[in-house]
Amino acid sequence: MITYSQGCYLGVLGGMGPMAGAAFALRLAALTPADVDQQHIPTLLRNDPRIPDRSSAYMAGGENPLPYMVEGVRFLEQAGAQLIAIPCNTAHLWFDQIAASTRLPVLHIIQAVIEDLRRLGLPKGRIGLMGTAATLKLGLYQRHLEAQGYECIVPDDDEVERYCMGSIRAVKGNQLEDAFAPAAECIARLKARGADAVVLGCTELPLAVPHALRPSLGVTLTDSIDALARAAIAHYLEEQAQEQVAA
Amino acid sequence: MITYSQGCYLGVLGGMGPMAGAAFALRLAALTPADVDQQHIPTLLRNDPRIPDRSSAYMAGGENPLPYMVEGVRFLEQAGAQLIAIPCNTAHLWFDQIAASTRLPVLHIIQAVIEDLRRLGLPKGRIGLMGTAATLKLGLYQRHLEAQGYECIVPDDDEVERYCMGSIRAVKGNQLEDAFAPAAECIARLKARGADAVVLGCTELPLAVPHALRPSLGVTLTDSIDALARAAIAHYLEEQAQEQVAA
Repeated sequence: MITYSQGCYLGVLGGMGPMAGAAFALRLAALTPADVDQQHIPTLLRNDPRIPDRSSAYMAGGENPLPYMVEGVRFLEQAGAQLIAIPCNTAHLWFDQIAASTRLPVLHIIQAVIEDLRRLGLPKGRIGLMGTAATLKLGLYQRHLEAQGYECIVPDDDEVERYCMGSIRAVKGNQLEDAFAPAAECIARLKARGADAVVLGCTELPLAVPHALRPSLGVTLTDSIDALARAAIAHYLEEQAQEQVAA
Repeated sequence: MITYSQGCYLGVLGGMGPMAGAAFALRLAALTPADVDQQHIPTLLRNDPRIPDRSSAYMAGGENPLPYMVEGVRFLEQAGAQLIAIPCNTAHLWFDQIAASTRLPVLHIIQAVIEDLRRLGLPKGRIGLMGTAATLKLGLYQRHLEAQGYECIVPDDDEVERYCMGSIRAVKGNQLEDAFAPAAECIARLKARGADAVVLGCTELPLAVPHALRPSLGVTLTDSIDALARAAIAHYLEEQAQEQVAA
């Protein structure tokens, strides 16, 4: 249980996309141990969808989103945030630059997913990856997972375009009913290749694959929105425990 | 379709409760006509659950939430909001004082619900009400609905406590699985008494009654979260139309 006496916002750099930012805030509330409103984590969600597309910047020479993201984090810092969460996997291609632009701690979504794999009983194993073409092409997950003893199974370029990006674009275009089938096909293919778990490594993908349908897919899934929410909650619980020791 | 070129946040005074604030941001994104991230409404959600309980203040002499709400609206104004939405029905007992504290327009959730009833083909009729004991006791919905030609059907005190507050407390305590049955019982009773539609007039209630289960309840429902999101979207679309006429 978490209680607060003063300004200590979780600052959320959202809008990438806006539904993922909102879903993060919702899952944060759902996963927080709380009996009444006042025990939830005070959150400031800046859900600004005008940040230039992260994938286009890396893959097609589009406008650089970094200055917009740095401006957003500084806005949250000035508004009273004490911790930053960024519910967008592709944005983590710029993680080091974003983290260097603020004095606040910034949660790392990939590390949160790895902690979630451990929570799910997978301290090692073969992990199937789903995400944007940019996230997968630039090895964002592969680098962190392999450094921590995992093996990665990555869809080929055609599968990424058809199943991952197809599903992600449907969520971003508010066509949720078209988002499930391509995501489920990708999960089935990764499972058939021996994945012990599949990472929903783009924050649109948890919206494409509703919680209620996940047990039917027959493989462990880790959800980058939920993993980031769990990491934020753990940070607040730990801080509170330290305050109690100090008091 | 909505496009933006400069700072024009929808400011959301959330946290009452935090799941309702987040659900509002999610439904706002889901109901906005948009093909890509950049066409969504830039939103700043201050999901601060430390605002004292609205019902306790009115019903049991608890701490007054008004100074906290005024402070929240001023925060959003300073942060660049151009319009305020408050996804909490009971908070609207203080609507006039909140609106008087800011130069920004503030959407009224009850008026948004009445516009939603008209959208649903009910320009008049008998409306069953659900909400907190404070909202119902103080006639928040009754006053507005009756002034606009509707007739109200209100649960008795025991039903409000058992079915409305029972469901609302389950949502606030993160026990969503316990929230549906009491809400559904109340909806059935209001329908049996002749309601043409039932208002989910507390922002926890739409979370208790998932969209997927609503058709099975056999009566028109209006959802105060969705109604408020539609009102915000309409405001932005109208403003954009005016800008295009002016250009």
